[in-house]
Amino acid sequence: MKFNIALLAGDGIGPEVIDQAVKVSDAVAKKFGHDINWKPALTGAAAIDAVGEPYPDETHEICKSSDAVLFGAIGHPRFDNDPSAKVRPEQGLLKMRKALGLFANVRPTFTFPSLLEKSPLKKERIEGTDLVFLRELTGGIYFGEKGRREEGETAYDNCVYTRAEVQRLAKKGFELAMTRSKKLCCVDKANVLETSRLWRETVQAMEKDYPEVEVSYEFVDAVAMRLVQWPNSYDVLITENLFGDILTDEASVISGSMGLMPSASLGSDIGLFEPIHGSYPQAAGKNIANPMATVLSAAMMFENFGLHEEGKAIRTVVNKALNEGIVTEDLADGGVSYGTSEVGDWLAENI
Amino acid sequence: MKFNIALLAGDGIGPEVIDQAVKVSDAVAKKFGHDINWKPALTGAAAIDAVGEPYPDETHEICKSSDAVLFGAIGHPRFDNDPSAKVRPEQGLLKMRKALGLFANVRPTFTFPSLLEKSPLKKERIEGTDLVFLRELTGGIYFGEKGRREEGETAYDNCVYTRAEVQRLAKKGFELAMTRSKKLCCVDKANVLETSRLWRETVQAMEKDYPEVEVSYEFVDAVAMRLVQWPNSYDVLITENLFGDILTDEASVISGSMGLMPSASLGSDIGLFEPIHGSYPQAAGKNIANPMATVLSAAMMFENFGLHEEGKAIRTVVNKALNEGIVTEDLADGGVSYGTSEVGDWLAENI
Ligand SMILES: CC(C)[C@H](C(=O)O)[C@@H](O)C(=O)O
Ligand SMILES: CC(C)[C@H](C(=O)O)[C@@H](O)C(=O)O
Repeated sequence: MKFNIALLAGDGIGPEVIDQAVKVSDAVAKKFGHDINWKPALTGAAAIDAVGEPYPDETHEICKSSDAVLFGAIGHPRFDNDPSAKVRPEQGLLKMRKALGLFANVRPTFTFPSLLEKSPLKKERIEGTDLVFLRELTGGIYFGEKGRREEGETAYDNCVYTRAEVQRLAKKGFELAMTRSKKLCCVDKANVLETSRLWRETVQAMEKDYPEVEVSYEFVDAVAMRLVQWPNSYDVLITENLFGDILTDEASVISGSMGLMPSASLGSDIGLFEPIHGSYPQAAGKNIANPMATVLSAAMMFENFGLHEEGKAIRTVVNKALNEGIVTEDLADGGVSYGTSEVGDWLAENI
Repeated sequence: MKFNIALLAGDGIGPEVIDQAVKVSDAVAKKFGHDINWKPALTGAAAIDAVGEPYPDETHEICKSSDAVLFGAIGHPRFDNDPSAKVRPEQGLLKMRKALGLFANVRPTFTFPSLLEKSPLKKERIEGTDLVFLRELTGGIYFGEKGRREEGETAYDNCVYTRAEVQRLAKKGFELAMTRSKKLCCVDKANVLETSRLWRETVQAMEKDYPEVEVSYEFVDAVAMRLVQWPNSYDVLITENLFGDILTDEASVISGSMGLMPSASLGSDIGLFEPIHGSYPQAAGKNIANPMATVLSAAMMFENFGLHEEGKAIRTVVNKALNEGIVTEDLADGGVSYGTSEVGDWLAENI
């Protein structure tokens, strides 16, 4: 097959980790007889510096005419500590999610047997953890009206959800649960929020269409606890945008390295694939960032094209690297470690 | 001294754990020559059943004419799974917080040497953890306008903060940091939310009044990760209502038992003291609930009256019980355990 893939490296360590995902994807393409046409485009702080906005029209055109988007990371401390900044890198990411209709963010958390010891959690707590969050990505408080009044003394952010938005996300959740262990947890704060009550009543009404799926409803604060206590008690979790942001990051550290967790954002024909980790400006340009989450995001991309063998080839080589200690310093425990690009080279060669 | 204490047992295990806190407080009062006049009042599902609303006027009158409120727990599954319920127990808690002006919720997370092994986290990750969250409690999305439109198909919750609300909470945070290790972390989502940008700019402007305090700003998703990775890297954290709800629950499991963490809600003359855990309806009436969080909440109550020796007496006896294995089944590791009231009796006798 022939693919056009928009390549949005973004900020911080983004360009370095993206380079490795490209190497590995090219090796997979070669092995399986595909042809990838990479189309680089600007985003984030890098785009603000170059053209004054974080998701330029040109980038959107490139994404729209591609089969998928592979994304690095976004964000820069220069903007974070200036609450009055008018343009910020994150706006690019949000604009892109909305413009591409990526309403479902798929964030798996799984463990690697060779890394169980690296987790902050005890081994017996995390063994067998294999859960997936479906985070709603184009609604809620991220996209509601926001602003100031009373001469800047009062700030507001509106959280809004429609039943249709909940339904399309929940549908993906039920479907995913059917392909797994048929357990679905709806995470909300229905004891306080009206939007959460809409989530809960909508999901409750859909239960009858999926009689085999066992649905539970938990408050977001309870889930924040249980994720640390018994992560392996969860399977598929669905939740709104902000809760998903917080809980998926919390879940990502369970695996022993937040450098390992990939994600997919779906909804329209064009999927976006990106690591869960951020732009880590402190590590940028040092060839020390762990590229595996981005490489695994490329695996999700192939799988989303229906190319399961290709995805598996990537997962297998990542596992092999972890077993053989071909890792960046975050996973090396003070022992031998490799640079970002050396890890990428090794993965590509061993595909 | 002579105190009037409103006693709001609430729902589920509330009445059982409250009983133990009363025993222990009475023992402390006797030892130190104080006189406590307990004034029981209805709240939560219990109050809905009795008089149709979760925070009746009579209860408010009793609270207002007391020196403090000791609170058990609130909530019942009957209401949770009925998104259309018109009256819900939690409304009582929210109404009370607002009516008593309790804008600052103080939620410490600390470890007990004898319980380090019980934590889901590895010992070396949690040793020395001693952090405090100051959660804003009477603003934000909990109290903004909420409702439905488009015939119920669209739900909304507004999150609103004024600069003055942020200032008064942050002031308590800076002051608390000054009495501890002078490190303050402001938790927000300033890369997305306007209310968070107001938080960040307000706290930034206050930094100059506390030149000794080292202030950091972190995004809520990053804190959700670091709390699991390096909880002992935090000291005082300030945050808005919803973030505080999620993060303090997450932090509470670090200690090895969520049954152990107390809290205080302050703001007016009358403080409210309650365990962080919920109403655990499954355990209600079985004499198995761990009363220590409620007992430690009573310690915070004495300390808030300026009675530090009294508070210390309670903390000491709780530590002693933990060391000697006088614990409920959640802490017994399958070994010998005691009932809720037996633990309470032991604590009171050993004051
Ligand atoms: C960078 C930020 C806007 C973004 C979010 O909050 O969605 C990030 O944290 C994420 O989870 O992808
Ligand atoms: C019961 C509920 C309304 C409450 C809250 O969300 O504030 C509880 O979770 C808490 O943290 O005290």
